[in-house]
Amino acid sequence: MDTNTYSTATPIEMRHLIRQGAYDKPTSGLCPGYAQANLIVLPREQAYDFLLFAQRNPKPCPLLEVTETGSRATHIIADDCDIATDFPRYRIYRNGVLDDEVTDVQSLWRDDLVSFVIGCSFSFESELIEAGIEMRHNTMGRNVSMYLTNIPCQSAGSMSGNMVVSMRPIPYEQVVKAVQISGAIPKVHGAPVHIGDPSVIGIKDISKPDFGDPVDIHPGEVPVFWACGVTPQAVIMHSRPAFAITHAPGCMLITDTKNIDLRG
Amino acid sequence: MDTNTYSTATPIEMRHLIRQGAYDKPTSGLCPGYAQANLIVLPREQAYDFLLFAQRNPKPCPLLEVTETGSRATHIIADDCDIATDFPRYRIYRNGVLDDEVTDVQSLWRDDLVSFVIGCSFSFESELIEAGIEMRHNTMGRNVSMYLTNIPCQSAGSMSGNMVVSMRPIPYEQVVKAVQISGAIPKVHGAPVHIGDPSVIGIKDISKPDFGDPVDIHPGEVPVFWACGVTPQAVIMHSRPAFAITHAPGCMLITDTKNIDLRG
Repeated sequence: MDTNTYSTATPIEMRHLIRQGAYDKPTSGLCPGYAQANLIVLPREQAYDFLLFAQRNPKPCPLLEVTETGSRATHIIADDCDIATDFPRYRIYRNGVLDDEVTDVQSLWRDDLVSFVIGCSFSFESELIEAGIEMRHNTMGRNVSMYLTNIPCQSAGSMSGNMVVSMRPIPYEQVVKAVQISGAIPKVHGAPVHIGDPSVIGIKDISKPDFGDPVDIHPGEVPVFWACGVTPQAVIMHSRPAFAITHAPGCMLITDTKNIDLRG
Repeated sequence: MDTNTYSTATPIEMRHLIRQGAYDKPTSGLCPGYAQANLIVLPREQAYDFLLFAQRNPKPCPLLEVTETGSRATHIIADDCDIATDFPRYRIYRNGVLDDEVTDVQSLWRDDLVSFVIGCSFSFESELIEAGIEMRHNTMGRNVSMYLTNIPCQSAGSMSGNMVVSMRPIPYEQVVKAVQISGAIPKVHGAPVHIGDPSVIGIKDISKPDFGDPVDIHPGEVPVFWACGVTPQAVIMHSRPAFAITHAPGCMLITDTKNIDLRG
């Protein structure tokens, strides 16, 4: 199946391809109009703390669905969806340290695992593009720039850590429009958390992102920062639970839920 | 202290009066502009299920704050706030059955209790009134009419039950305005869940509410139904956890949070 075929695949067709191991790359641009999602999987023992963490930090952790303990199936964001096979790539963390990156976690699955499926900025990016706002990382063919900030999340039991943000350079005359469009979609991180000087939120060098790739900022543009679904990975690294599974950055779940249904 | 004094009391002053046992009545109309809140307290053993229930049912259960296990203090919606004393009246449920109504639960407090503080429709009522929409139950000096519906909530582990709704008669020409105003405040139940024929949502006799008081519906008015913060009490009755504490209907916590800050 070539790239042209991917470009017309439905969400369920893409999940099947990914499940069969036929696609293991970033999902940006696939199935336009449909929401993609971040993943964090934790044992039931830590699940209460993480659920409370997400409740207290809805901007970085907008929950789209929390599965039943032990179940690999989703029911709200997609049907015929297997959490353990339908992301192109997964990361395995042990005691807060990245231990492995794999394309399938069936062999690691346990009856006590709970999956948290979290909204993804790809959903608001498509609306920003529709409004005529360039996504520089797309234009440059790169992953979005992500940074660990000095903004502490509200901690919850054993879970704590600082917020990770994604950055998009926006021309001054489009900043208000970008705030309003993204602000209308709270289930995918909502309005920006910061506009302008990166040092205010603890970013020392904008050209050296902690995750993803650097992108150019042109004269007349301001860096705009949104809460990012990679925040749970920073929380895992900081809080050091014995075991956790996440998606690999950029390699998301393609859901049956339309972006437009995440508004309001 | 007479009623005139209550009418000018600040939230912290009212919480102190209630804490001292000087006020044990419904809180409707007190501290205008400030959000009031529903309560459900459960042992940690059931807290994960209820937190997940609230995540899956945000319209009836919009969480304003979840306390640390064992703590009686809030930190987000109010400071200097004691969950065990600052509601005028509490209800004690054992195995899903209403066992007692008291003005203070200090003697019942345990180190394993978790408090869920939930948004209250008083917050959007004040905005509806400001927009010129009569709240009939206020005009009649009664409690709002509440009904158990046939709308199933999304269950979560041991927690399940049908939605409780509150009803307000609205003139046809104000229905759209009422939807838009309340819809802009998702943290206090948001837009209505049903407009019109009560039998569609399983209400057999609109003149016999399951909670609160009946109110008159005039010609040219339609009954409009909103998800209600009494839903957790119906869930407790249906799911029968060994022990639970709730507020008594109408006897709410007065928070330091302004209604306007619950928008969006």
